Amino acid sequence: MSFPCLVFRRFSSTVAMKTGPSKQHFALPISEASLPKGFVATGLHCGVKKDATANDLAIIISESPRETSAAGCFTKNAFQAAPVCVSQEILRRTNGRARSLVVNSGCANAVTGEQGLQDAWAMSQETSHLYGAQEPSALVMSTGVIGQKLPISKIVTAIKSQARSAATRSLSPSASAWQEAAKAFMTTDTFPKIRARTFSIGGADYRIAGIDKGAGMIHPIMGPPVANRPLHATLLGCILTDAPVTPSSLQSALTHAVDRSFNCISVDGDMSTNDTIVALANGAAAPDDIPEIDEETAPDAFLAFRTELTNFAIDLAKLVVRDGEGATKFVTVTVKNAATYEDAHRIASKVSTSALVKTALYGEDANWGRILSSSGSVQGLSVPINPARVSVSFIPSDGTAALPVLVNGEPKIVDEVRAKEILELDDFEVCIDIGDFGSQQAKYWTCDLSYEYVRINGDYRS
Amino acid sequence: MSFPCLVFRRFSSTVAMKTGPSKQHFALPISEASLPKGFVATGLHCGVKKDATANDLAIIISESPRETSAAGCFTKNAFQAAPVCVSQEILRRTNGRARSLVVNSGCANAVTGEQGLQDAWAMSQETSHLYGAQEPSALVMSTGVIGQKLPISKIVTAIKSQARSAATRSLSPSASAWQEAAKAFMTTDTFPKIRARTFSIGGADYRIAGIDKGAGMIHPIMGPPVANRPLHATLLGCILTDAPVTPSSLQSALTHAVDRSFNCISVDGDMSTNDTIVALANGAAAPDDIPEIDEETAPDAFLAFRTELTNFAIDLAKLVVRDGEGATKFVTVTVKNAATYEDAHRIASKVSTSALVKTALYGEDANWGRILSSSGSVQGLSVPINPARVSVSFIPSDGTAALPVLVNGEPKIVDEVRAKEILELDDFEVCIDIGDFGSQQAKYWTCDLSYEYVRINGDYRS
Repeated sequence: MSFPCLVFRRFSSTVAMKTGPSKQHFALPISEASLPKGFVATGLHCGVKKDATANDLAIIISESPRETSAAGCFTKNAFQAAPVCVSQEILRRTNGRARSLVVNSGCANAVTGEQGLQDAWAMSQETSHLYGAQEPSALVMSTGVIGQKLPISKIVTAIKSQARSAATRSLSPSASAWQEAAKAFMTTDTFPKIRARTFSIGGADYRIAGIDKGAGMIHPIMGPPVANRPLHATLLGCILTDAPVTPSSLQSALTHAVDRSFNCISVDGDMSTNDTIVALANGAAAPDDIPEIDEETAPDAFLAFRTELTNFAIDLAKLVVRDGEGATKFVTVTVKNAATYEDAHRIASKVSTSALVKTALYGEDANWGRILSSSGSVQGLSVPINPARVSVSFIPSDGTAALPVLVNGEPKIVDEVRAKEILELDDFEVCIDIGDFGSQQAKYWTCDLSYEYVRINGDYRS
Repeated sequence: MSFPCLVFRRFSSTVAMKTGPSKQHFALPISEASLPKGFVATGLHCGVKKDATANDLAIIISESPRETSAAGCFTKNAFQAAPVCVSQEILRRTNGRARSLVVNSGCANAVTGEQGLQDAWAMSQETSHLYGAQEPSALVMSTGVIGQKLPISKIVTAIKSQARSAATRSLSPSASAWQEAAKAFMTTDTFPKIRARTFSIGGADYRIAGIDKGAGMIHPIMGPPVANRPLHATLLGCILTDAPVTPSSLQSALTHAVDRSFNCISVDGDMSTNDTIVALANGAAAPDDIPEIDEETAPDAFLAFRTELTNFAIDLAKLVVRDGEGATKFVTVTVKNAATYEDAHRIASKVSTSALVKTALYGEDANWGRILSSSGSVQGLSVPINPARVSVSFIPSDGTAALPVLVNGEPKIVDEVRAKEILELDDFEVCIDIGDFGSQQAKYWTCDLSYEYVRINGDYRS
């Protein structure tokens, strides 16, 4: 095997190196018409990253006359970074009415002690001043190296440059401003990750946009904010909509969506200290007479919104796996007919993180033995696997026929030519049918494990 | 980074390739004086492997006039291979009085259905005939490719060649016969793994010898035989002693030893379908008037034996990590001052399997951020980690001073020159002190994740 050298992957340090096949075709343009109303965005270089051409600070603010709702899901890592602690506290203090977010890349502000917390509060405070709020109400996210202090004065100076009166203000509702914001999220990402689209609920048209980042240290397990968490990197994402949603329902919908999207992806099985997904809903597109969408008072509208949010979050989450460090394959692992969703999810997660499965995917080897072995290694399922009922197949993404390799526990004679055709695709599905225990299904999205992954992570101090 | 090409790693297929630094210095000679009395061993080529110079069948038989006790720990994988099912059933049928074992490499006899079970029974039956037993009483182990049928007639022919009357019989108590047996366990191993030594209990001298194998798909979780398991790789190992031990106490001691040795190693985090450790104790060195060591009737002798067995098992287990596929480092991960042993063990296991930690070890990067992040990602600990109490240090194996990198949650300014000195060693320890919750400690043994690992496993159909 050789090293395909088609793409520069820019580290949050000054190093840049060639690695992996090109993923630029996933960097799609967005249309202004699909961007949510009432938000302004910017992305700029403030000096966290040494490379002056690389954006490292993003700000998004709601200017809607309606109150903006905010929600977040945060890493369950015991070592939550300072911005994770601060954002949770802000959601608590504002009762879910935060109206902006500020993000830096290049430094995770993790394991930075009391100073780290002060810096995260300062980022929030300065951003809040941009819209005249005295108390800090901007959600904060950071990504990059762990254990280093933020260059906070550079960040504060850059935030101040966005004041209404400043000649340097670049905050804008334009598509290009949103694109610059997306670039400021990037660390080892090879392309900016932004998507936007429209949807309708109850006859009203709304827009939703999202930005995320991540390529390594990707195996998030995120939950809603935890009350009274002691105040003491990385998947980051934000989802902005001009639909009107109450804070509690936005949190409920986001938790549901994250459980089925970002919590179902893995690049390397490593959970970060900074994983954060936040959502803002500013109601800017809502007709005046429409109340906020609420789980209790308008359950139909709520379910419609939650479905939209979930599908959108899945699309954003997949982008991270597409850009997985060193990844050459995008693989969907489906586990079906399990007794419980949790059983299915645990098996899918185990297969998706198996080094032997992931190297076999890289080697384009239809190695069902490794898939089976890793499925069987999950301990403590609610119903034990019955080996005689398990089937495994490879499903190509091009619409052609699936290839069964194991049926009811018996190996099939594999058509090696057909197996090779499927495994050479950039994108396919591994389907594990547990058999006769139930009807629950879980999907996981993963990538292969390549030389490049080892090279990137053997060299880079994250 | 370049590919150091010093060693041939022989696959159980016909392929052989150069990879990784030499590990031949771990292939130690054994002295006949330390081999347990009353056992004969052999290793030979019978034709499972295509390479006629590679051993692929081992037999060890107790010829002690005392009854031999047998015990085993077996993979908890749902897809237990046929030999795993058969060996458990034999222990049940004989009430722990099996007196021999037969092992093949090159084919795991896993996911082989009813035929696979018949083949495993045939191996046991033919081996039992060698010492005149009518019922199958030989423990069976297999390692190699999953999903392929055994060439059982070749194996049976080779077993028959060891009959007492046969001119071809090579079963012998000699050190060279034991060495040949150890070679027959090998698949991707680069050296045969055999150790032997002596110990004393109650004034009597005993001997203990062990053989194991494994280099990839190594993350065993093994337990004692499960009753009524449905009949329907790989770490393999056997431990033989001429001490007298009752079957139930041998099982109890082995379960304890395996929990603290083989269940604490990881090469790639993947649990096999075939993991098996068996022990035989034939009492051949016991004075006539000494009863069998028993947990209930002779607790002091039992504890002494269990300690010997555990320490010996740890030495054998470490050999597997030393020979980990692509490994260039042998790293001990110690978690101390945890609330419970299980908490400590789970954290140590998580750090030992983190792709980011393992690539950093390969890159000789003192990346404590990744160690911390992976420690913090363990969910559901009995007592949550308090980040402000956690300390991390690197401890060199050469007896020089430890290097603290994090103390009570605060990063230290790391002496990069000193860090480099330690991380360039082949062998060192990562110590994670959880702080103030308890006094429980767990150790895990792991290796780094290198290009070679990806190359070996991207090419090889296991």
